[in-house]
Amino acid sequence: MTEENTVFIGNKPVTAYVMACVTQFNRDAEAIVLKARGRAISRAVDVAEVLRRRFMKDRVDVTNIQIDTEQIETREGNLSNVSAIEITITKI
Amino acid sequence: MTEENTVFIGNKPVTAYVMACVTQFNRDAEAIVLKARGRAISRAVDVAEVLRRRFMKDRVDVTNIQIDTEQIETREGNLSNVSAIEITITKI
Repeated sequence: MTEENTVFIGNKPVTAYVMACVTQFNRDAEAIVLKARGRAISRAVDVAEVLRRRFMKDRVDVTNIQIDTEQIETREGNLSNVSAIEITITKI
Repeated sequence: MTEENTVFIGNKPVTAYVMACVTQFNRDAEAIVLKARGRAISRAVDVAEVLRRRFMKDRVDVTNIQIDTEQIETREGNLSNVSAIEITITKI
């Protein structure tokens, strides 16, 4: 998957990430992986849905979704588990 | 999928839904579908991860994840789009 790009979903508005994806697809990316952790997981799903139903309707689809658990270090230096998601969006 | 049960994920603590799933698996459910909308999507992923990595480690796995958009009616009577997720957890 050499043509694969990654977009990390954080606290920006959904449209910011949608626009980042549209830009990458317009630069000939064949697939994009949205990655998010914790509360941003819901936003990653929003980005995928807005892309495939509105901004790139009939041009992309969700081809893979994986969930996982990652360990992050808290400000106090402890290890904490956080859920993560990867959503692959591919040109059709 | 006659043995399939559904657990709707809302605003309760993650452990409440984990326990609901454990109970259903102990009552011979072969598969459970976690359903969540909006911000509860992140919690649904937490429930799936805690189940397969801790409470039912090596006994269940995530076998399907689907995302979708649903229309809900707001308090003002307008229609609003909300993202949704369905995570299927199956005995292995």
